[in-house]
Amino acid sequence: MKYPLPIENLIECFSKLPGVGSKSAERFALSTLNLDQDVINLFSSSLLDVKTKIKRCKKCNNLTDENECAICKDKSRNKDLLCVVEDAKNIVLFEKNGLFNGYYHVINGLISPLDGINPEDINLDMLIKRIEKDKVKEVVIAVKPSIEGETTALYISKLLKNKNVKVSKIAYGVPIGADIDYVDSLTLEMALENRQQINDN
Amino acid sequence: MKYPLPIENLIECFSKLPGVGSKSAERFALSTLNLDQDVINLFSSSLLDVKTKIKRCKKCNNLTDENECAICKDKSRNKDLLCVVEDAKNIVLFEKNGLFNGYYHVINGLISPLDGINPEDINLDMLIKRIEKDKVKEVVIAVKPSIEGETTALYISKLLKNKNVKVSKIAYGVPIGADIDYVDSLTLEMALENRQQINDN
Repeated sequence: MKYPLPIENLIECFSKLPGVGSKSAERFALSTLNLDQDVINLFSSSLLDVKTKIKRCKKCNNLTDENECAICKDKSRNKDLLCVVEDAKNIVLFEKNGLFNGYYHVINGLISPLDGINPEDINLDMLIKRIEKDKVKEVVIAVKPSIEGETTALYISKLLKNKNVKVSKIAYGVPIGADIDYVDSLTLEMALENRQQINDN
Repeated sequence: MKYPLPIENLIECFSKLPGVGSKSAERFALSTLNLDQDVINLFSSSLLDVKTKIKRCKKCNNLTDENECAICKDKSRNKDLLCVVEDAKNIVLFEKNGLFNGYYHVINGLISPLDGINPEDINLDMLIKRIEKDKVKEVVIAVKPSIEGETTALYISKLLKNKNVKVSKIAYGVPIGADIDYVDSLTLEMALENRQQINDN
């Protein structure tokens, strides 16, 4: 004895989501019984739409339902600046807070030889070509502070050597509001190494 | 700047699930991009099916996609025993482990005057009528050990007074494998109160 077939199917689908075990999937599936018909219709059609309509922006690899994403289409931005991010999710994070007014480029992964991800797997060709074509003046690398992130940043800066482009990466250090007692040693080391002078001597 | 509309819609739908916040909903929605088309199709159609095809069994209130659920249709079960549960989920739990071979009745809630749930709200009429009609010999109340559960059990046993039906409830006590040091005092009190003689004196 199990649940009726539609519920069993739904439990199976929910359990394919990241971090959702069989108990949570069961809970989610049963809770859909209480959702409004409107929500269910939207839920059902959005799932199909996401799979069929969402593609990658031809220019920057961002998620979009058009040929070019909304950011690449926006001509009012600063075309001298290009921010390199690992994932399309990161763009939303930067944009939500209005932190950056240049363009973005999603590389979809970081170099990680241990996991079998080599430079040619993360489509850096497209990035370099774009930088040359658009005459970008500064490339800001905004990937996570990890061995893979550092390797990728270093690799990109080597590829751009002698190309008359400034390459920078976001600062790694003690986060604002953190208690310095509880910051891990690697972050502290980074923060010390990247210390900035605050007087004029 | 947000995600393209289909993704935003999907995030909104996922965030309506119990215990899913905006961050998890975002994660779920983006992960659907990596699901196979087959899974997406099943996911989408199951959502619609659950809402349209799933109803309550006319006899026991269990979830079913037919008029009568699979358990009520199974004539090989012991019709003398009727197990009263709070939720259709509980039936699956009992059945998964093959613990009970009588029939079930889902009351869909427990009496809880503080939350405004009175006896007439949990459809006990249907239960009493069924017990009389089917000539049930023993009603086993399997609801959670709480004030609401106890109240409901007591209320049902009062309704069945002088009707020649044995009413029992599942044992509450120390769970198997538990370290007695860590069992809460209420459980311990229950376990002491419901102690069972193990010799013949």
